[in-house]
Amino acid sequence: MSTHQAPRQLKLGFILHGVGPGWGDWRHPDADPTASTNIDFYLRQAKLAEQGKFDFLFVADSVHITEKSSPHYLNRFEPLTILSAVATHTKNIGLVGTLTVSYSEPYTVARQFASLDHISRGRAGWNVVTSWLSGSAENYGKPAHPPHEVRYRIAAEHLTTVQGLWDSWEDDALVHNKETGQFIDPAKLHTLNHQGEFFSVRGPLNIARSPQGQPVIFQAGASEDGRNFSARYADAFFTEGSTIESSQAYYADIKKRAAAFGRAPHQASVLPALRAIVGATEEEAQALHRQAEGLIRIEDALVALARSFNEHDLTQYPLDGPFPDIAQYGADSNRSSSERIIRTAREENLTLRQAALRYASPRKEFVGTGVQVADAIQRWFLNDAADGFILFEALPYQLDAFITHVVPVLQERGLFRREYEATTLRGNLGLDVPENRNTAARRQAA
Amino acid sequence: MSTHQAPRQLKLGFILHGVGPGWGDWRHPDADPTASTNIDFYLRQAKLAEQGKFDFLFVADSVHITEKSSPHYLNRFEPLTILSAVATHTKNIGLVGTLTVSYSEPYTVARQFASLDHISRGRAGWNVVTSWLSGSAENYGKPAHPPHEVRYRIAAEHLTTVQGLWDSWEDDALVHNKETGQFIDPAKLHTLNHQGEFFSVRGPLNIARSPQGQPVIFQAGASEDGRNFSARYADAFFTEGSTIESSQAYYADIKKRAAAFGRAPHQASVLPALRAIVGATEEEAQALHRQAEGLIRIEDALVALARSFNEHDLTQYPLDGPFPDIAQYGADSNRSSSERIIRTAREENLTLRQAALRYASPRKEFVGTGVQVADAIQRWFLNDAADGFILFEALPYQLDAFITHVVPVLQERGLFRREYEATTLRGNLGLDVPENRNTAARRQAA
Repeated sequence: MSTHQAPRQLKLGFILHGVGPGWGDWRHPDADPTASTNIDFYLRQAKLAEQGKFDFLFVADSVHITEKSSPHYLNRFEPLTILSAVATHTKNIGLVGTLTVSYSEPYTVARQFASLDHISRGRAGWNVVTSWLSGSAENYGKPAHPPHEVRYRIAAEHLTTVQGLWDSWEDDALVHNKETGQFIDPAKLHTLNHQGEFFSVRGPLNIARSPQGQPVIFQAGASEDGRNFSARYADAFFTEGSTIESSQAYYADIKKRAAAFGRAPHQASVLPALRAIVGATEEEAQALHRQAEGLIRIEDALVALARSFNEHDLTQYPLDGPFPDIAQYGADSNRSSSERIIRTAREENLTLRQAALRYASPRKEFVGTGVQVADAIQRWFLNDAADGFILFEALPYQLDAFITHVVPVLQERGLFRREYEATTLRGNLGLDVPENRNTAARRQAA
Repeated sequence: MSTHQAPRQLKLGFILHGVGPGWGDWRHPDADPTASTNIDFYLRQAKLAEQGKFDFLFVADSVHITEKSSPHYLNRFEPLTILSAVATHTKNIGLVGTLTVSYSEPYTVARQFASLDHISRGRAGWNVVTSWLSGSAENYGKPAHPPHEVRYRIAAEHLTTVQGLWDSWEDDALVHNKETGQFIDPAKLHTLNHQGEFFSVRGPLNIARSPQGQPVIFQAGASEDGRNFSARYADAFFTEGSTIESSQAYYADIKKRAAAFGRAPHQASVLPALRAIVGATEEEAQALHRQAEGLIRIEDALVALARSFNEHDLTQYPLDGPFPDIAQYGADSNRSSSERIIRTAREENLTLRQAALRYASPRKEFVGTGVQVADAIQRWFLNDAADGFILFEALPYQLDAFITHVVPVLQERGLFRREYEATTLRGNLGLDVPENRNTAARRQAA
């Protein structure tokens, strides 16, 4: 079944959120609707995911809401603060935070993640995003967001500037000789002197080299520009993963692009989103799935769908008519997602209502017993559709169910770790610590 | 001795830092020179300060270093991340973070502090600063920092925008009715629609009303512009407190200004910096003070002094000659500090060397036994020079010594709490939660 020689290890992330990612999840009888700002809930979930040996926690983000936004967008912790709070209550699990390059400064971003990397002793990761909602710009004094292609130029310059700052301090720059009073070796503290199209940053960063040297980079680029960005810069790719076929196509494409940038396959993990629904029996799982679907209101499903179309008002179209011609609203927004939605609607001849509810519901493929869900995961993993998954908790206590029923099956099959390999995110993902560019330059000059 | 009718309670803050605030503190035999990025050291200090019933922890900040910067500037945690990490290991103590308005976005700042306020269940405070080092601008793509007066216009607009965003959500905006599927009451979620000279921000903020409603505002304004800003907006003022006389003058002035803005005296606490050195005996304390002075190198003292003069190079002047004429370099930098240094040097006819070492050394007034230091604190407190103090740990284990020797004396004299009054910073500082402006508007319209 597999084309791989050695047993690869599955990578698993967990989306750390308050109220669930589905638009109706908070309505479940067991759901705490105040979970999104409940620190105890977050600490519980984080510690549980670590017990389950997940590679990392992942905090999503956005910087714009309206009164129509989904509950999990409306009210959420800022990622760096909540991850810092979680850091001291965990020891091994990675801490990946989303932060937009569109409305942030490289110097501040570099500091925040370096600080998190020190606090967590080497477990920080940055999910690099470009904001795609035009409402976001209005919260940051900008009349409109830049075009799609420009956003990725900004992203590349922002990210490489941050990475340059992370190399400001060589590993042994801190001397702290109490006798002589020398605290640092000034030759090992470096300015960056970056002068680019969008940013100019002098440096050095005002925090010492962090345990990972370079925090891990995540990205979710799916468009042409996004894929090239991801393939070149990211250590792991977060994808929507709508079907095994589309994921295989994405997987092949992104690995090829990564190779063209001189990167090894294990340096570029493809991690689709996974909204599993797990029961002790198949009947229980199916009942849970029906319950989740029953919580979704069509008006919420329409707003959810509209996010990929720059929040275009979909209530103006007949619900039970053919899927409307709205491609233009997706073109400069979340392009890859909007194109996929349109393609699916056309191929399956879906009405607007059907397309919206389909989009809002957990997929049937990952509904079942521990063995059934593990089978599906294994199918994707061994057939080059995924190097692992990022789990969303679709209903309350589904993280518990996944750890109880799915993880042991994956472990028994030799697909997933029984113990952490390392205390750093790089270590657990099997990524090396890149040599500091300034140390390398010194070595090459010598 | 006192002019006050009821016994006021002293307010005490603790500067949470790694290597000490003095330029030679890290050279002390007991000092951990790696403390600045040692999370365990920070957690120890934070928990200890809470055992001592301190009102708040205070994390200072700056956004620019050179290879000549002091050890405690060179390498430090980013304030919001370290305070979030500390939050879940403490229950009552306030968490005050410094963040510059010069290089940050109101929407992001509002989120970060609201998030910290939720994580800590109501203990967040923001120390609002305007960056005064021109090197800072070069880390943020700006050729130079704006003039002093413009910086305070930016600060006022930035702060009031953040405060407006903190009122985005009325207290009861979250409805989460599981039956109907209504998550929020849209009438209680408000846009800000701020369009100002420096910022334009639409809102609403994407995090619900935090426990304190409005996190507490700290400021250290000492110049004419700075004092008016502080008096108008800040709940507590951090001052250098060089002598009791200068602090009394500052105290009288700032309280008068605050009153002119319609604020009650208890809403505007004056908190000078305190670098106490406490011993079990007077001899021990004096020996510690001599030890601290002996750790200071003159070259470091010059760089420390230069920070108030926009990092002007002071090595070009004769060390043992009269204090040089460098007022021009301080005018647009840290003006109040530079003016005070020049005034002291002239009044006491100090050489450059003497002025620099004086500036870098702990003051003698707060060196002594627990009773002696408590006497000095009481003298300032009861003679309108201070409403409390912010303690710097001058040497290792001085926080321990302060809590062991000074705090009990202050408690016996009825000047300082034996138990926390509240679990929020507002509660412990005796500040009310201001009514949400949108709720007030609704009430007034009804």
